[in-house]
Amino acid sequence: MIGVFDSGLGGLTVVKELMKRLPGRGVVYFGDNARYPYGGKSGALITQYAIENTEFLRAQGAKVLVVACNTASAHAVAALRERFPDMPVYEVVGPALARAAAISEGRVGVIATTGTVESGVYERGMSSLRPEATVFSQACPLFVPLVEEGWVGKPETESIASTYLLPLHSQDIETLILGCTHYPFLRRTIAKIMGPHVRLIDPAIELVNELQRRLVADHAFDAMLTKHAGYRFHASDRTARFERIATEWLGTDVRLAEPSH
Amino acid sequence: MIGVFDSGLGGLTVVKELMKRLPGRGVVYFGDNARYPYGGKSGALITQYAIENTEFLRAQGAKVLVVACNTASAHAVAALRERFPDMPVYEVVGPALARAAAISEGRVGVIATTGTVESGVYERGMSSLRPEATVFSQACPLFVPLVEEGWVGKPETESIASTYLLPLHSQDIETLILGCTHYPFLRRTIAKIMGPHVRLIDPAIELVNELQRRLVADHAFDAMLTKHAGYRFHASDRTARFERIATEWLGTDVRLAEPSH
Repeated sequence: MIGVFDSGLGGLTVVKELMKRLPGRGVVYFGDNARYPYGGKSGALITQYAIENTEFLRAQGAKVLVVACNTASAHAVAALRERFPDMPVYEVVGPALARAAAISEGRVGVIATTGTVESGVYERGMSSLRPEATVFSQACPLFVPLVEEGWVGKPETESIASTYLLPLHSQDIETLILGCTHYPFLRRTIAKIMGPHVRLIDPAIELVNELQRRLVADHAFDAMLTKHAGYRFHASDRTARFERIATEWLGTDVRLAEPSH
Repeated sequence: MIGVFDSGLGGLTVVKELMKRLPGRGVVYFGDNARYPYGGKSGALITQYAIENTEFLRAQGAKVLVVACNTASAHAVAALRERFPDMPVYEVVGPALARAAAISEGRVGVIATTGTVESGVYERGMSSLRPEATVFSQACPLFVPLVEEGWVGKPETESIASTYLLPLHSQDIETLILGCTHYPFLRRTIAKIMGPHVRLIDPAIELVNELQRRLVADHAFDAMLTKHAGYRFHASDRTARFERIATEWLGTDVRLAEPSH
């Protein structure tokens, strides 16, 4: 089983990509909506939550971990690898950076939550991948609530997005990493503001590309993820809203499983 | 000591009112920002959090409890009174309703988080206070993030507020309860949209009025809150942001105390 966690619903974008691209590989999902959102909280706290979530997923049979939340990827991945050395840990920051480094000449934009931006993880990652590249990052803290509350496509959202994206627009970037699982829902608005010359990178797609390459290349890894087609969903706050939105996004009937954490 | 809790910073509006109106009465505050926000979470979960927060405040010496969060007031007060029968519990829903019932002819508006609106607590409360009155309630889920992110007074906020308030505007209400501790920060915007004939009610002020009346009338209660002028602040996520904003709002230097929970 592939264990996936996120602070809430956002990580389901990764699950959707896994369902489409790696059908037959089981997934157990944990949405930590009781403590959602992670974006503005401290690194120490997010690391503690990430460890608890991983312990839960391991107890549910997960052999490979996917951290589907950029804020947790930014803060907690080193601690998770140290704590669970037997478990391959995939996250959303590295694959998106690798893609940006591959397709750009050196001016890379990142939009993310306040927590992710303050961590400096994209700047550090890029400086080891391509030291001559420059990363321009911008926190967009209202994007998550705007998506969660269904304001995608509304003029207020477009206006708020313009305010957030203005500094990046003037930096002449070539690529823009959508550094939060919620942001692909605003892709059309963001693309319109940034213009056709800026290529948008969706970390969920890059992450699944990386997993897929490893499955082909590494037989032991492939064996770890025995073909087992189940999908199981857990949430720390078992709400009807979670089930309704997950069912809508994934196009399949989602019922939350016990236990909750 | 008066123990006050909220899901984060919002309850500091109540502390500010306590400092101004009941100086010399000690306050111990707990902001549960590690699990913020409460607004969209389930009633069962919020009740569990409220009990944990109250246990923490009792261990810190609180003799009287103030639930400064409307969502927790809506869901958890009955459970708190049952669990802690020795502790007077004050909350923000009842006093605001009593005020609305006293000054209106029967058409009362309420704006609040999704969780508070779905609880139906204002409708139930009003029907026992004034059965002939009608309550019109409206969830405004983006108000908290807009306030937290500093978008007060911006045109996007005004436009979002107009969308939320439109249904209430057409209901010809006489009073409007600002049913979330963050909403008084948007008072000017809300007043402008609703017009001068709608009276706005700030639950923090009504709550402190009620406490003050009881202190005058009830000597045993007064003795419980011995004159002890300290203010102590705790948060479940000890962030610099909490200290910075609390210092700004309260106009006094706020340093978070240990332990955090």
